[in-house]
Formats: sequence, C-alpha cells, structure tokens
Amino acid sequence: MDRVQIAVVGLGRMGKRHVHTLIHRTPRAHVVAVCTNQPHEIEWAQQNEEYKTFGIKLYDDYDKMLEQPGLQAVWISTSTDVHSSQTLAAMAKGKHVLCEKPLSTDLEEAQSVIDAAKGYPGLKVMAGFSRRFDASYRDAAVKILQEGAIGSPFMVRSQTCDLLDTTGFFIKYATRNGGIFVDCAIHDIDLTLWYLSDAVPKACWGVGTLQQHPELKASNDVDNAVGIVEFWGGKIAYFHCSRTQAHGHDVSTEVTGTDGKISVNLVPRMNNVVLADKRGMTHEVQPEYWQRFEMAFATEANEFVDAILHNKPVPVPMETGQKVMLIARALQDALWTGEVSRFDEAGKRIEKAATENGHA
Amino acid sequence: MDRVQIAVVGLGRMGKRHVHTLIHRTPRAHVVAVCTNQPHEIEWAQQNEEYKTFGIKLYDDYDKMLEQPGLQAVWISTSTDVHSSQTLAAMAKGKHVLCEKPLSTDLEEAQSVIDAAKGYPGLKVMAGFSRRFDASYRDAAVKILQEGAIGSPFMVRSQTCDLLDTTGFFIKYATRNGGIFVDCAIHDIDLTLWYLSDAVPKACWGVGTLQQHPELKASNDVDNAVGIVEFWGGKIAYFHCSRTQAHGHDVSTEVTGTDGKISVNLVPRMNNVVLADKRGMTHEVQPEYWQRFEMAFATEANEFVDAILHNKPVPVPMETGQKVMLIARALQDALWTGEVSRFDEAGKRIEKAATENGHA
Amino acid sequence: MDRVQIAVVGLGRMGKRHVHTLIHRTPRAHVVAVCTNQPHEIEWAQQNEEYKTFGIKLYDDYDKMLEQPGLQAVWISTSTDVHSSQTLAAMAKGKHVLCEKPLSTDLEEAQSVIDAAKGYPGLKVMAGFSRRFDASYRDAAVKILQEGAIGSPFMVRSQTCDLLDTTGFFIKYATRNGGIFVDCAIHDIDLTLWYLSDAVPKACWGVGTLQQHPELKASNDVDNAVGIVEFWGGKIAYFHCSRTQAHGHDVSTEVTGTDGKISVNLVPRMNNVVLADKRGMTHEVQPEYWQRFEMAFATEANEFVDAILHNKPVPVPMETGQKVMLIARALQDALWTGEVSRFDEAGKRIEKAATENGHA
Amino acid sequence: MDRVQIAVVGLGRMGKRHVHTLIHRTPRAHVVAVCTNQPHEIEWAQQNEEYKTFGIKLYDDYDKMLEQPGLQAVWISTSTDVHSSQTLAAMAKGKHVLCEKPLSTDLEEAQSVIDAAKGYPGLKVMAGFSRRFDASYRDAAVKILQEGAIGSPFMVRSQTCDLLDTTGFFIKYATRNGGIFVDCAIHDIDLTLWYLSDAVPKACWGVGTLQQHPELKASNDVDNAVGIVEFWGGKIAYFHCSRTQAHGHDVSTEVTGTDGKISVNLVPRMNNVVLADKRGMTHEVQPEYWQRFEMAFATEANEFVDAILHNKPVPVPMETGQKVMLIARALQDALWTGEVSRFDEAGKRIEKAATENGHA
Repeated sequence: MDRVQIAVVGLGRMGKRHVHTLIHRTPRAHVVAVCTNQPHEIEWAQQNEEYKTFGIKLYDDYDKMLEQPGLQAVWISTSTDVHSSQTLAAMAKGKHVLCEKPLSTDLEEAQSVIDAAKGYPGLKVMAGFSRRFDASYRDAAVKILQEGAIGSPFMVRSQTCDLLDTTGFFIKYATRNGGIFVDCAIHDIDLTLWYLSDAVPKACWGVGTLQQHPELKASNDVDNAVGIVEFWGGKIAYFHCSRTQAHGHDVSTEVTGTDGKISVNLVPRMNNVVLADKRGMTHEVQPEYWQRFEMAFATEANEFVDAILHNKPVPVPMETGQKVMLIARALQDALWTGEVSRFDEAGKRIEKAATENGHA
Repeated sequence: MDRVQIAVVGLGRMGKRHVHTLIHRTPRAHVVAVCTNQPHEIEWAQQNEEYKTFGIKLYDDYDKMLEQPGLQAVWISTSTDVHSSQTLAAMAKGKHVLCEKPLSTDLEEAQSVIDAAKGYPGLKVMAGFSRRFDASYRDAAVKILQEGAIGSPFMVRSQTCDLLDTTGFFIKYATRNGGIFVDCAIHDIDLTLWYLSDAVPKACWGVGTLQQHPELKASNDVDNAVGIVEFWGGKIAYFHCSRTQAHGHDVSTEVTGTDGKISVNLVPRMNNVVLADKRGMTHEVQPEYWQRFEMAFATEANEFVDAILHNKPVPVPMETGQKVMLIARALQDALWTGEVSRFDEAGKRIEKAATENGHA
Repeated sequence: MDRVQIAVVGLGRMGKRHVHTLIHRTPRAHVVAVCTNQPHEIEWAQQNEEYKTFGIKLYDDYDKMLEQPGLQAVWISTSTDVHSSQTLAAMAKGKHVLCEKPLSTDLEEAQSVIDAAKGYPGLKVMAGFSRRFDASYRDAAVKILQEGAIGSPFMVRSQTCDLLDTTGFFIKYATRNGGIFVDCAIHDIDLTLWYLSDAVPKACWGVGTLQQHPELKASNDVDNAVGIVEFWGGKIAYFHCSRTQAHGHDVSTEVTGTDGKISVNLVPRMNNVVLADKRGMTHEVQPEYWQRFEMAFATEANEFVDAILHNKPVPVPMETGQKVMLIARALQDALWTGEVSRFDEAGKRIEKAATENGHA
Repeated sequence: MDRVQIAVVGLGRMGKRHVHTLIHRTPRAHVVAVCTNQPHEIEWAQQNEEYKTFGIKLYDDYDKMLEQPGLQAVWISTSTDVHSSQTLAAMAKGKHVLCEKPLSTDLEEAQSVIDAAKGYPGLKVMAGFSRRFDASYRDAAVKILQEGAIGSPFMVRSQTCDLLDTTGFFIKYATRNGGIFVDCAIHDIDLTLWYLSDAVPKACWGVGTLQQHPELKASNDVDNAVGIVEFWGGKIAYFHCSRTQAHGHDVSTEVTGTDGKISVNLVPRMNNVVLADKRGMTHEVQPEYWQRFEMAFATEANEFVDAILHNKPVPVPMETGQKVMLIARALQDALWTGEVSRFDEAGKRIEKAATENGHA
C-alpha cells in the first residue's frame, strides 16, 4: 500500500492536532514518528495509547529523527524560531516539508530558506497557510476569482479575534511571535493577497491597545490591534487582531467588489443549535481555531500528501508566506513607531532613517 | 373632508394601543371618544394626560357614545362576546366599523352580522386581521401571488406562540375566547387562506396539551396545540399555537411551493442588537405581538381611514373572518373530540352524529 | 496494529460513502471487502483506484464475502428488503453488524431479527440512525436531557425535506421504501423518542400530497406529508416530510420545553459564505444529507468500531429502530386511510377492523 | 390643543421625509410651513395633496417664512453650506432649531453658531444626529453604558455603506459635502463618542479609493474610504465609508469591551422575509437609510417637540456635532495628505507645517 511516511516535529497544542489529523483523516499518510525536546510533551507522548496502537516512534532529537529509515516527509510545528533551521535540515536530508507559518519572523532568514529550496526541485516544500484549505474560503475564492460574483474586488476586511486565554498558555507562547500583526494578521493578509490577486502594497498604518494581558508590555506587544493596508491601484485591506474576545474565536473576512460583497463567517457558530430562553435566542461560538478549521487541516494534510505521491506542485509555496510577512512586518513597524510604512510601486519597503523608527 | 372622527370602544391592553396608533400614526384620524364600562379602565382614562391634550371624550355607555355629534367611525376592541352586538348597533347608527377578530365565536351569529352589513352599503365594515397589514407578510404575498417566486404554493406552516404570561392577565382573558385554535390560530388560518388563494378545507385534526396554565382545564382549554388542515386539491396547512414560550413572541409562517419556500420571521428578533459574551451570541425576542406588529396596526388604521375618506373597499371584508372561523372551529372540535373534522368539496362541514362528538 | 476488518455491502450512493468514511475517517477500521450484485456498481468498483490502493476485495455474492478470512464486521447498506436476511446471515457467521435503517418495513420481520440477535450476545449489532452521531443533535441532547436547559420537554417539530431530485434516481429508489413516513420521517421520529425520553404514542394522523413525482402514484405514495403524533402524558410531535424542496436539504428539529426551546439547523447553510449583491444577501444550502451529515457518519463508524474493539454496548441498539417504525407505520396508515391511528397506554397499536382501513 | 408650530426648510429628499414624519408620526407637532428656493421643489410642493389637506404654507424665501405668525420652531434640512446662517437667523427670530448634521464643514463657523446659541438660553437648539434615536443603537447604549454588558468598552468598528446611486442624485449632492469622512463617517464617529464616553482622539489615518464615481475626482473625493482613530487611553475606532454597495444600505456598528461585544445590524435585513429557491436562501436589504431609520426620525421629531413643550434639554446638543467634526476633518486630512493626523491630550489638533499638508 502506497502511503507517505511522515513525521511531526513539535507536540504542542497544534503538533498534537496535526498528528491526529494525519492518523484520522489522511489515509495516504502514515505517521511513523513524532519529535519534541519538551519534557512534558515527551512524557505525554510516551503515555499516548493511540501512538502506541499506530506504532509511532518518539524522538527527542530532531536530527536523529531525520535519520529514521523510510521517512519521506516532515511536518514542522515547532516554535517559529526554529522553523527555518528545521526546514533546511529536512531538505538537506531529502525530506519533503510542510512548515507552519511563518517560516521566520526575520524576512532575510526566510528568504534564505526559500532560496535554498530551489536547490531541491524534487522536494515538496509547502507553507502551512491553513485557511487556504477551508471549504468556505475556497468557495469564496471560486465566487470572487472564477465566477466574478462581486465584479472587481477592491476591498478586504478581515479579522482574527481569539478567545481570551486565561490559562497562561498564550502568554508563554506569545513572547517569541514577532508582535500581534506578525502572529495574528498573517492569515488575514494571506487571504487578502489571494482575493486581491497579489496586490502590491503602497502604505500601511496600525495601532494597538493592551487590555487584558499586561505581561505583553515587556515585549512591547499589544492584545488588540487594527491596521490598514493601502495597495497600489486603489485597493484597500483593513484588519483587526484580538487576543481578548469574550465569546470565542471570531474570525471573519469580507471582500467587496464593484458588484457585490462576499462574507465568510460573519456570524460565527459552534454548531447548528440555538437555545431560546428567557434571555432571548443564543448560539455558541467556537472556542478556538481548531473547531473552526479542523476540516481545513485535514484538507491541507491530504493535499500535501497528494502533492508528494503524485508529484504535483504544492498548493501553497513558500514564496506566498514571504509576501505576507512583508506586509505584516510593515504593519508591526507602524504600530511600534506611530508612522506610516510605505512601499514603492514594486512593493519594496521604503525605509525611514534609523533614528525615526528606532524600535528595539 | 379633513379627518375621520373615530371612537375606540374597549380600553383593554389592545384598545389603549389602538388609541395610541390613531393619535400617533394616523394623521387623517381624529380620535374624539373612547368608551369602556370597566371601572379600572375608566379610572385610567380619566387620568390620561394625552387624552386630555387631544380632547378625547370618555364614555362608560356605548350607546351614548354612538350619539356623539360628528362621530363617523367606531373601532371595536372589546371582548369577543359583544363584538357582534356592538357592530350591529354602530351600523344602525350609520357609523363605519372596524371590529377586532373574531366577529363572534358563534358562526351563525357572525353570519347574521355579515348579512346585516349588506343593508348598509354606504358603510365601511372591516375585519381586524392585522397581519394582512404587516410589511413582511405583504412582501411575502407579492412574492408568492404576484411574482410567482415559489411556483405554485401548496403548503403552509404557521405558528402563533406567545410568551408565557405570568401576570394572570391571560387567564382572565382566556375564559371566553372559544378555545386555543379559535383564539390563537385565527391569524395563521387567515394567512393560509391568503397565500393558498382561498383553498377549500377537506379535513383537519389537532391535539393539545396543558403545560403551564392549569386554570384552563376548567374551560377544557389547553395552552399548546398542533393541528393540520388538508385542503381539496392537494394543499396542506399545519399550525402550532402556544401560550407558554419562554423566550418571547415567536410567530412565523412558511409557505412552500413547487419552486421555493418563503419564510416570514423564522428567527424573531427584538431589534438589530446582538450581544456576544461568554454564553455565545444572543439576541432578544419581542415579548409580545405589539413589538412585532405595531407598524401593521398603524397601516391598518390608515387604510381603514383611507377607505372611509375616499370611499374605497375595505382591505379585509367581514366575510374573510367567517371562512377563517369555519376552519378554526373544526380544528377546535377535532382537539375536543379526538376525531377528524371533515368538509365536503364546497367547504361545508360534514357533521358527525351528536353522540360521536358530544363535547359540551 | 489493532483494526477491525470490515466489509460494506451495497455500493449505491450511500454504500460508496460508507466506504469513503471508513477509509478516510476511521483509522481503527480496515475495509477489506465490498459487495454488490448490481452490474453497474460492480463495474464502478472494479475501476476504483482507491479500492485498489487499499486492497479492497470486491464480491458479487454476499455469502461468499462472509467467508473471507479475518472479516469481523459488516456494514449493510443495501436496499431495505434484504436488510433482515443479510443481518441474520452475518450474525450466523459471527460477524458484527451495522445495518442501515430501517431493519425492515415489516414490523414482525424486524422483530424476528431483534429476537435472533439475542442469541449472539458476543456480537455488536447496531441500527444505523446517523443523526444520533451529529454534533448538533448531540449538543441538543446534552442541553435538553442533562442540563435541563429547556425545562421539561413536551413538544417536537421535526422536518426532513429533501432537494427535488430531477435525475430519476429517487423514483427508482422510492418504490420499495414503505411510504413517505416510513422512509423519510424515521429520523425525525427517532430524534423525538430521544428528546422526549421514549414517550409512548397515543394517537396520530397525517396527510400527504403529490406535487412533483407523479410516478409515485402507482405505489400510493406522496412527495410531501405532514403528520402529528400525540403521546400519552401530554407530549406532542409533528413532522413534515418532503421530496420536493427547491433550495436544498432542509432538515431541522425544534424541541420545546416548559422553560425554553432548542432549535437544530433552523436555517440550513452550505458553509459560512454569504453573497451580497443586487438580489440581497444569499447563502447556499446543502444539496443533500451527505453535506449535512458526513461528519456524523464518521462518528458513527468510529463508535461502531470502538464498540467492537473495546466490547462496549453499541450506541444505537436494534430495538430503537423498532419503536420508531411502530410510529412511522401508524402515520403511514393514517395517511393511507384518512383515519386516526391509536395506541393503548402500553404503546400497542389499537387496530381498526379490516374493512375500515382496507388499504392494499 | 397644545402643539408646536413648526416649519421645515429644504424640500430635498430628506426635507420631504421630515415633513412626512412630522405629519404622520409626531402628534404634538403641527407643520405650518415649508420653504425651498429650488424651482422643482416648489413645483412639487404646490401640487402636494397632503400639504393642502393639512394647510401647510409654502415659502420660497426663508426670511419671510420666519415672519409667519405663531411659528415656534424650524427644522433645517437644506444643504450644509447654509446650515449655519439659517440657524443663526432662526435663533435671532426666537425660533427653536433642529439643524441637520453637520452644522458646517468649517469648524470655526460651526463654533461661532454654538457660541451664538448661548445667547438664547430659552431656545432649544439641537443637532440632528438621527442614529441616537434608533431603538437598536439605544438598546446598545443601555447595554454598554448602563448594564455593563461588555465590561469596559475599548474598540468600535462602524461602517456607513450606501447603495450605489445610479441616478446621478448623489453626484449632484456630493460636490459640497466636505469629503467622504465628513459626509459619511459623521454618524459612525458620533456613535463612537457615545459608546466610548467622549474619548479624546490621539491620532488618525485613512485611505480611500475611487471605484464607481469618476466625477468625484474633480472635488478630490473618493467613493470608498477606511480610517482608524486612536484615542488617548488605549481606545480605538475604525470606520468604513462606501458609496458603492451593490446590495443596499449596509450600516453596522460593533463595540468591543473587556467582557463582550455588542453588534448593531451586522446583517442588514429589509424585513422578515426569506426566499429559499434554487440559488439558496436570500433576504433583501434596505435600499437606503430611510428604510433603516424612519422610526428613528420619528423619535427624533417627537423628542425635539417634547423638549420644546416641556422645556427639557435637547437630546443632542450642538456641541456634540463639533466634537464629531473635529475627528471627521482629521480623517479627511489624513486621506488627502497621506500623513497621520495627531491630537494632544486635550484633544486639540497638532497641526503640521503648511508645506507638509498643502492640500488645496
């Protein structure tokens, strides 16, 4: 039987879910190994009945894992700071790679990986932009880009608003994420570039506020931010990122064109249940991205595997992530400096003098 | 002629609202009198500043009120048992009449009023079926009957579900209302006959249950009921009546045709506000028919006045109410006897032998 | 690795989907065989690349398939008329069985299978009532039965309204299904018994109409029907079945209690996309049950497999289906005869004399 | 009878509607005069049957109208450029004034009127911010400001998106309106100051695009714009203004706080009707602000009249408009210059050197 032998690196919240997706919803994948250097994750994995059932080998050393005979592909779900080095190492060992977004918060480091990947034309190297695999976003893309249902699209509003995390998990995770726009708006920017056909940025500005996570002050981060991106040619996108929603994972996108508007998930719903009682009519909201996007992750996994098995192009190349990060960083700079970030008509950032944007 | 001089008889919850509608939203009406024989309503009216401001005269005697010089029209909003006699008396004095539904719970008494009205061709005599004046039901009628948006309509689902009344008001009011189908399904049946183009009933059956108002047992009534009406020619309607909703006034209608379905108010909403909080996303529901239909009452009042001022046909003739009551009574009989009520192809009720449906 | 070796019998629309679910979303199942005696299904399966990839053996003889070494379980997805015999044969060979609803349109035949199953206490024999595995219906059950969110539930409204099938597929399929209430309301009745805690039926009545499928007249069937079931103790359910919806698969359920109402899927939605254009705001509707319930089928498959692997009780025993069918048949009789079907307080059908309900 | 004698100045689209509101829904108002100097409006008014019926006198000279004996109040609904002078003239003649927003596009001129009004303490002088009278926005205010339903509010998203006008009416009207943020975001800014308790602006930026109305280029205007306002103390608002929606008047506001979010009109609906057909499920959207806010205008009129009759403070003082305009102009400047507009901690605009923002 023809299945791709794959390993998942990183067993945090998301890594565990990728293993689950690969086992439960990706029949052409065969999870043969997982890897983590975190003691509590190692302990958790050692006791996992399902991993035993399916014979998944546990590693605490990434390089050793790459040596496992038969291993064909690696799904990198570690913290952002090792994405680039792990991708490079995997490619060097001839493994296909799906690396979670972003490849790096450092644009130059990311570019060096992209350049290196060109040296491995036989490998499938894919950026993990999961929303591109969601049925609703895809339906929106068909309507916008193929059917012309809204005429010429010129404006995107997109928000990624997370449920307030009161467990401390988020704060621990947030310290190395590059700032709210880099961490949180990245999918919104990706969708924007998709629906606006790779529009070229011209200027952007953003502001933020710190409402519930005072710990973020130390890393100069905020927990809510709003930004606008103006593109050359009269297109506009604006974003809202939040870590502090009371009601759940409220992630929506609207694309306006000359003849109409497409909304995706304007009213988030946990399921189809509505309770009518003295308070009125209430529906629950998904607590986090997993409930909203678990099927998208399944599609992503299957398409990655399919690209390997049938030597197809990957659905989301690494270059996509680079364009997204360029804008995310510009928004982040605007938030930090208070000044407008600008780009030339080729989409190249016009840098201010160092004294003007001297953010550490 | 500048304005129609009109009196409202009955100052219960609804009568007061009709006075309000006539003052606030019916510029061509001039409320010159109100009438009630209920001491607490008399007291309330005597102290009403607005009535003083607008010079509205208060009567405790209906016949005396009819003698007021210049009075042109009467809006009858008393209890059902005097609707017929008050309508007859008003016509005899040459007054136009808008009588709340139903004209009578006794089909023969109602018919005698209808017959009598033919003797006053110059008077406008109108049945108060307020939903016919609601913007949404009218839009549905346009789509169904004029635009053919759903092809040939053949099925109606309609419900009138009231908020549980815990004040005792309802119980007091309910004793003389003729049973739940007669009191509560009458608008649903009216809408059915409208959208199904006066379909002829063939058979009907219904059941009920008593959940929250044990006092209704004395009058053999229930507080929730469901009924089906089969019409000749393959059309069907089914209804749900409730007095016990926890969340508000939940009144919806769906009409299915060969090419589509029209829903009216499937999700009731108090206003446009949604609260998202830990519980999820919540909107409030109108507590009662007034919040849902206050604009319909204004349209009704204006069209009644307009019919008088410009000698137009009334928008809802008394005969409409009679067709509705025939079905309501048949459903009520089915609920009381457990047997199917049947009609011949002319829509005439086929009576069972007295021993079979010996309900008091 | 510990997986259940399973075969799927019947490769019609649904059978193919069950194979898909078992391959793609049921990691502890191993589909080792499929079986059909339909030439076009055999041909289709012979050319199926996925079946080859996963080494699934194709049979045209059910008995031979049962002989396959290692086979542990059978998923019966054939036409209703062979459900009973195939279930009996599988049990006789020591195979676990998941049999699609209904076990039989003949109540006595179904009972004989249930009785026979008692002779195989080691086998898992399960009724395929897929809605019991849907996340929304389960959430509703938790809210109603565990949390008491609506107080005491006493009324169910449930509809199964299918998209009009213009391909001829439905007509071919419909001839042996036992009538619209038996084929189409069976899930609604199942949900009712779930949410009303196995309420005992007292009386029921229903009517139908034939709007779009004149071919059904030959089998005395209709394409739209409405029915009411009254239960002992003041509970009520009412149903709408349709084969002729223009807009999609519109399947909703509402449960009303003394303190509130739970709605499931009152507004059906294909996905989270809304298009706003000159016509207004539009969302698409699932075309059929598969888009609505494909995750429920996955849960069903995993729980069946789990019951086998860990020797747990099956989530939906065969007896459940029998209670459902008793009511479905009573509604069907009412539709055919025009008379009320009645039950005694033990839920046993009170038969009318043969001359009264002389339906062939 | 005690009614306020009122005149309406300006019989454009809105002026006519104000007359309608005063006649049909404001029983304590008595429209005694209207005034316009536009020939086609004069002609229209001369032929208006309703105006004749209610004895409304028509003027083409504002000063003459102010001389009409008994006139107590003036509703100014002319073009913005004469709002200030007409307000001053009315006050000088001792008339109460309701002036449509904005009082002036020139902040200093507006301030001079506000200062002058202090010389007439006996007159009611009110700014026409109609959304403050809408039932939903009021309900939101109660929930946010009184009930604390969302904790501490810190973010507002608000949009005023109009249906594309293809009649040429808008273009004619737009030439003197001060730019899209001044004309179109003014209500959104007003709501923001309401819900954020008169937060003090710190910085703002905005961008625009011209998609459908090339005629606007001549006045340096755009037909879609997005802007962000940062307030001192960590509050943020962001706005979308559009003249080019395909589907209708799509005006919504969301207020986020530490414990929840309030949405107003996130899904605009013409009425309660939904059509389900082959395309899916569709509801219509209000074509313009009138269908959305006609009841708000009635409340506004009644409260203005009530303030006069009972000598109460006006519900929206002129000063409110001034705070709103300060922000609107700053956004407009940002759009025109591409630079961030900034304010000091007292909310006073920090001007850039003339060479930097040399917009004509």
